[in-house]
Amino acid sequence: MDTTKRVGKLREIMDDKKIDLAVIMHFENQFYFSGLKAITYSRPIVLTVDSDKLSLIVPSLEENHAKTMTKADKLYVYHETFMSSSKGGSHIEHLKTLISSYPTGTRVGVEFSSLPIQLGNMMREAGLELVNLDNDIQKMRYIKDEEEIELITESGRLVSLALKESLENAKAGLTEMEVDQFGNQALFAEVARKHPNATLDFFVMTPSGIDRSILPHVFSNTRKFDENDISIHSRQVGLNGYRAECERTFFISVPTDRQKELFKIAHEAQLAALDTIKVGITAKEVNEVARQIFKKHDVEEYSIHRTGHGIGIGLHEEPSLRYDNDLILQEGMVYCVEPGLYVPGVGGFRHSDTVVLRKNGSHQVTEYAKELDELTF
Amino acid sequence: MDTTKRVGKLREIMDDKKIDLAVIMHFENQFYFSGLKAITYSRPIVLTVDSDKLSLIVPSLEENHAKTMTKADKLYVYHETFMSSSKGGSHIEHLKTLISSYPTGTRVGVEFSSLPIQLGNMMREAGLELVNLDNDIQKMRYIKDEEEIELITESGRLVSLALKESLENAKAGLTEMEVDQFGNQALFAEVARKHPNATLDFFVMTPSGIDRSILPHVFSNTRKFDENDISIHSRQVGLNGYRAECERTFFISVPTDRQKELFKIAHEAQLAALDTIKVGITAKEVNEVARQIFKKHDVEEYSIHRTGHGIGIGLHEEPSLRYDNDLILQEGMVYCVEPGLYVPGVGGFRHSDTVVLRKNGSHQVTEYAKELDELTF
Repeated sequence: MDTTKRVGKLREIMDDKKIDLAVIMHFENQFYFSGLKAITYSRPIVLTVDSDKLSLIVPSLEENHAKTMTKADKLYVYHETFMSSSKGGSHIEHLKTLISSYPTGTRVGVEFSSLPIQLGNMMREAGLELVNLDNDIQKMRYIKDEEEIELITESGRLVSLALKESLENAKAGLTEMEVDQFGNQALFAEVARKHPNATLDFFVMTPSGIDRSILPHVFSNTRKFDENDISIHSRQVGLNGYRAECERTFFISVPTDRQKELFKIAHEAQLAALDTIKVGITAKEVNEVARQIFKKHDVEEYSIHRTGHGIGIGLHEEPSLRYDNDLILQEGMVYCVEPGLYVPGVGGFRHSDTVVLRKNGSHQVTEYAKELDELTF
Repeated sequence: MDTTKRVGKLREIMDDKKIDLAVIMHFENQFYFSGLKAITYSRPIVLTVDSDKLSLIVPSLEENHAKTMTKADKLYVYHETFMSSSKGGSHIEHLKTLISSYPTGTRVGVEFSSLPIQLGNMMREAGLELVNLDNDIQKMRYIKDEEEIELITESGRLVSLALKESLENAKAGLTEMEVDQFGNQALFAEVARKHPNATLDFFVMTPSGIDRSILPHVFSNTRKFDENDISIHSRQVGLNGYRAECERTFFISVPTDRQKELFKIAHEAQLAALDTIKVGITAKEVNEVARQIFKKHDVEEYSIHRTGHGIGIGLHEEPSLRYDNDLILQEGMVYCVEPGLYVPGVGGFRHSDTVVLRKNGSHQVTEYAKELDELTF
C-alpha cells in the first residue's frame, strides 16, 4: 500500500492549517496512513505525523508487527514487563514525551470524533491547541486510489462467491450460523488458492424469520430456518484491509403475497439507485430515487435507513447516500447501494451491491441474482 | 442478564461522588449496563444514567433491537431518512437536548479513556463538569456475578472443544485459516445444538512458522503449514457476550531441540502461574512466579508481555497480571493465564487457560493437553 503519498497529502493539509503535529487515534486512519492494523486495541496505538517523521507508539507485542507492516520513521515501544520497566510503561507516557518538545501554542491536528478526552486534556494542559482533522481525513479517504480499487474489486468477487455458496446451501432445519459457514469455507478456500499471505476480514449475518429479518443489524444466531422462511444474508469481505459488501433477501419455500410485493419494491428501488449513481450527481439524488419508489408504493415509513454508504477500510464510511447530503459524487468513490424496507409482521427486504465510480460509468464489483424466483430456495 | 443490580451499583457510586448524570460511550460498558450490543458503532450509541432513568440514544435501525434487548426507560432515536428528519438526525443532537435540562455546574460522570473530545467539548461548553468514572466501572467489572461466571464457564467448554478440533486436524499443506475452520465448524454445531437463540462471539488466530509465531497478535492468513512447523493456536469464544480463552503452542512433525527447550520453559511458567493464582494474593505475585522461571532459564528477555489479564465482556480486561499491579485478587475474578516467549529465529511459545477465582480455589474453565508429545501432530 502506498502510504507515502497519503502522508504527503496529510502534510500538505497540516501546512495549510499551520499544524505542526498530527496525533491520529482512529484505527482505520492509522491503517490508512501506516499500513498497521492490530487485532485488538485494548493496548492503545498512537500514530503521529510531523513535517519529517511518521511515528508509532505501540505496545511491545506489536513491535515486530509494526516493523514488518510499516515504514514508520520512529517506533516508541511501551512495555509491560519488569525487565523493560524503565523503557516506558504506557502510550500516555510516550505521548507525553513526544509532545513535550513542542512549544506552548503549537497547533496539533487530532480527530475530534475519536480522540479520548484523557489524551485531549493532556495535550491541552501541555499548552497545545487542538485542531480538528476529522473532515480532512474523511475527505482523503472518500477517493480511492487504483491499488485500493483493485483490492475492493477482488473483495467484491470474493464476497459474491461466498454469498452464492451460503444461499445455495440454505434450507429448512439449518441454523443461521450454519448457513453462514458454507460461504465462509468457500471464501477461505478461494483466498488460500488465489492470495497466499493475504489478510482477510470478513463479516456475515443472516437474520432469519419475520421478527429477526426486520432488525437491520444483528449477529447470526442458532435459530433454525423454518419450512417457509424469509431472511437477509449480508456479507462483507476485506482483502488486505479493503472491503466490499453484498447482500440478498431470500426465501425458503414460498413467500406470502405481501412478502412478494415488498421484495419487488425493494428490488426496484435498488435497481433504480444503481442506475442513478454516477460521477457528477449528488449523494442525495441517489437517495431520492429510491425514496420516490418507496413513496409511490406507499411504504416509505418502512424505510428506516439511508440508501447507502461509502466503503473501503471501514465497513461503513462517509460519504453517506442520505437525503441531506449535497456532496457531488466523484471518480474513485466506492458505495454500497442498499435501500431497505423493514415491515413488522412481514419481514425485512434489502439487496446490497458495491459500486466503484469511474469517469466512464459505475462498475458494480459484486454480483448475484436478484429476482424473486432466483432467490427462493 | 441482571443489569438492574449493576445500574443500582452505578447509581450508588454516582451518589457518593455527587454525580447527577453518567454518559457512557464504551460499547462494553453499554452492554454491561443495558444488555445492548450492536454489530457496528459506525452509527454511535450513547447510554445515560441518572437517578431514575436509564436512557439510550440509538440510530433508528437499532430501535427494535434496543427494545428487545434492554429495559431502557427511554429511547432517543435518531434518523437518517427524509420522512423522519424532524425527529433528530444524530446522537449529538439528542445528547445536546438531554443535557440541556441540567444546570451549569452539574457533575457528569464519563469515561475519560473513551469519551471523544467532540462530546466532551460539547458538555463542557454547556457548563457541565466532567468527572472520570473509568476506574469505578472497571472495578465493578472486575468481579463477575454467578450468571456471568456460568456463561464464561460454558464459553470455556466451547472454546476448548473448538481448539481441540482445529489442532487435531492441523497438518502440513493446510493454511492457517483452514485450520481455524475445523474448530469454527465444531463450535457452531455445538452452539446450535446446546444454545438455540444464543449469540456467539468468536475470535481465532493461528500464526504459524518461526517468523509469524513470534508475533503475539496477528490475523490468521493463508500461509500453508510446512512439513515441520511451529504455531500458536489462539481462540476466544463469547457466549451471550461473555468470553473465555484457550491457546496452545503446537508442532507439525518434529520440533528442534531449542524449540523443545523453550516450549518446556513456557509450559513450566504457565503451570506455576496457574498453581499460584488464587484469592488473597496479588496480581504481581502471579506474574513474578512466571518471571522467575524465565529468569532461571535465562530467557526473560523473550517474555514481552504480562502473565495474563482479566476477561469477560472484553477480550482483554483489567485487572492485569503485571509486575507492577498490587491488586489483591478477589473471589469472582476471571483471568487468562498465559506467560509467553517469543524468540526470533526459533518461534513463539504460549499456552493460555481461563480460570475463575473462587473462595475455595481457582477453577480452570478451559481444558486441553499441554505436553510436548500431546501437541505434536
